[in-house]
Amino acid sequence: MSRPGLEEMAARAARAARGLALADSRLKDRVLEQLAAALARQKDDIAAANALDVAEAEKNGLSPPMIDRLSLTESRLEDLSRAVAQVRARPDPVGEISDEKILDSGLKVARLRIPLGLIAFICEARPGALVEAGVLTVKTGNGLIVKCGREMARTSAALAEAFGQALQAAGLDPAAVTVLPTLGREDLRRLLSLSESIDLVIPRGGEGLIRFVSENSRIPVLKHFKGVCHLYVDQGADRDQALKLLINGKTQRPSTCNSLEALLVHQSEAAGFLPPAGAALLAKGVRIKADPAARAFLPEAEAAGPEDFGREFLDLTLAVRVVPDFEAALEHIARYGSNHTEVIATRDPERGRRFQRDVEASCVMVNASSRLNDGGCLGLGAEIGISTTRLHAYGPMGLRELTTTRFIVEGDGQLRI
Amino acid sequence: MSRPGLEEMAARAARAARGLALADSRLKDRVLEQLAAALARQKDDIAAANALDVAEAEKNGLSPPMIDRLSLTESRLEDLSRAVAQVRARPDPVGEISDEKILDSGLKVARLRIPLGLIAFICEARPGALVEAGVLTVKTGNGLIVKCGREMARTSAALAEAFGQALQAAGLDPAAVTVLPTLGREDLRRLLSLSESIDLVIPRGGEGLIRFVSENSRIPVLKHFKGVCHLYVDQGADRDQALKLLINGKTQRPSTCNSLEALLVHQSEAAGFLPPAGAALLAKGVRIKADPAARAFLPEAEAAGPEDFGREFLDLTLAVRVVPDFEAALEHIARYGSNHTEVIATRDPERGRRFQRDVEASCVMVNASSRLNDGGCLGLGAEIGISTTRLHAYGPMGLRELTTTRFIVEGDGQLRI
Repeated sequence: MSRPGLEEMAARAARAARGLALADSRLKDRVLEQLAAALARQKDDIAAANALDVAEAEKNGLSPPMIDRLSLTESRLEDLSRAVAQVRARPDPVGEISDEKILDSGLKVARLRIPLGLIAFICEARPGALVEAGVLTVKTGNGLIVKCGREMARTSAALAEAFGQALQAAGLDPAAVTVLPTLGREDLRRLLSLSESIDLVIPRGGEGLIRFVSENSRIPVLKHFKGVCHLYVDQGADRDQALKLLINGKTQRPSTCNSLEALLVHQSEAAGFLPPAGAALLAKGVRIKADPAARAFLPEAEAAGPEDFGREFLDLTLAVRVVPDFEAALEHIARYGSNHTEVIATRDPERGRRFQRDVEASCVMVNASSRLNDGGCLGLGAEIGISTTRLHAYGPMGLRELTTTRFIVEGDGQLRI
Repeated sequence: MSRPGLEEMAARAARAARGLALADSRLKDRVLEQLAAALARQKDDIAAANALDVAEAEKNGLSPPMIDRLSLTESRLEDLSRAVAQVRARPDPVGEISDEKILDSGLKVARLRIPLGLIAFICEARPGALVEAGVLTVKTGNGLIVKCGREMARTSAALAEAFGQALQAAGLDPAAVTVLPTLGREDLRRLLSLSESIDLVIPRGGEGLIRFVSENSRIPVLKHFKGVCHLYVDQGADRDQALKLLINGKTQRPSTCNSLEALLVHQSEAAGFLPPAGAALLAKGVRIKADPAARAFLPEAEAAGPEDFGREFLDLTLAVRVVPDFEAALEHIARYGSNHTEVIATRDPERGRRFQRDVEASCVMVNASSRLNDGGCLGLGAEIGISTTRLHAYGPMGLRELTTTRFIVEGDGQLRI
């Protein structure tokens, strides 16, 4: 891509974002209504484009998890249309006034919720993530400039077409959602330096891409590097329920960041829990890498090496360890966790609360599947990503996380003395 | 400073921060109580150390605004003690649970407020800012690692002593507030790379320092580069009140970022407002740089050059322009403002609201002095700085801005389907 082209596209997207920032809720919802119609209308074109991308990816030997993420099946397209409708139905956070107070000085102080500006979304082969990002940014009056992996070049062009039609049908500048042509690393580096136009960068993809973005960006970045999520089966846990959490967390969609990578079992539960767990995992095709104490109850397991804890397998592999007590589980997670999602299976409410308070993660679950750490499942409507750094947003980022507040003050001549 | 020393001090501060994160509100308030006592006890030592720093700064020819910021007069020390008490009296945001809801799936979802971790505070010659930063971080269970300018080496050592005594008296690791010895630029760059230990960087100082920090940090930075604040005198404004806002905003403490740098006057008010304003400014020693339309009413003014708009004078200089209408004032601010503080003097509530909504700044005031954009004056108790970038915090940063939330979820076996 030619040097001036990128800067100009970003500047144009920033101007379009300012237009969207001033749009009222009704107009922004109208864009989303038009988008749902455009996605339905162009369903076959999108599916055809995606089929070509998937075929090429298979030819190029992309990994099965990557191909899974790239595939826009009919049911996933329907999920996306539902997400558009869900986000549209939500209240618009922009314009909300909060924390109103009148100070002793008579000054009226409040916070007014406003969009962030223009967001750069950098993804690999995730068409669903692109749609969700576009929907959330439109709803919150932000602009979006998207750089996708070349694996989804055709799919993203088809989706960009739908966004452009929707914005134009509502009388807005289609540049408010700009999908860039395929960029190399050098162009990406340039994009990440355009801090005059771009307010925030959200990368979605493998650890390599995310590290590249974090290390090269002159613009604030919200990201997670990886999800190394644990399930801890506490003393006295409901074993049947814990087993369901384990199978769902590990096997429902193993290529995702909120899938389980490791199982920790209290020693008192090892003999009762591990044999049926091992059988169930085996039946689902899961490869088990266990420490010696766990292997005593898992004859089918391989020996875990030290590098198997703290590792994001992203496939049907699970590390297993038996821990002497609750504290040891906390310590293991403090050492190997990735601030993403941590789960305890317990019948003790006090230990559940302590786990929620003391475990350092953006989402801590008691008796629920790690796979539910997702903007949709947690009631945010959709998500633009999950943040595992504590600045601005921590956990799934929905509508509110795409806004900020400014102070608005009203006085009758108050001075500083 | 030797290479291992810096990494070790940061790692120790991070460990101490984790201890403070687990402290309950009563214990953190006890530290603040002890701090107030230590500041009172060591008042004379602190004053003596500061007097030596000021004398050396004067000898070295530091600019008057820098010396003003460095000086810890008795009344400023009293202000700081009051700030300690005010922050102590506030509710602790850590541990607050918000946004509780029960989803259709039966999942209970909420957000739990938690500290950010370890904050690096990089300042030049601002002892007051150091104390406020320490007080706010202790209250919110965060650790603080401070790098000050060498101009305040003696003052910061005396203040560090007070923090250390207060933490130790409460049974906490004094490393939770670590004041580093004077660092050169190379060491500062190293500090800014310690993302394993440090969660956030807040620089306070001149634009040069802040740019250096932003450009060299591998850790998220919250900052403002400069404050180019405008007062717009609207058609029909209360002229007497507007004049008071002008004099207070420009002259009450011109070295600060929330002081006025420019005055915009609606053309219909120029003849009535500018002559008395010019006389009052002159009496206060303010140098005026005006555009031709304003100079017609300000015989004492110099001609403004193009570089005088959008400039942070930080002294008794003011740029003045007559604008044809409200829209022109918005455009001028959009072009020259710095997202810091903007003020309108108006009697029209609708224009006041539009100004608050459409002006891009972290704090927008109607009929109140720009000098009131300060955590203390806006009811936050104290502030650790002002952010003019929209990520995480926008405007003065008080207690809440030093925390984040994690998602806490409780289920009874919910799975992802």
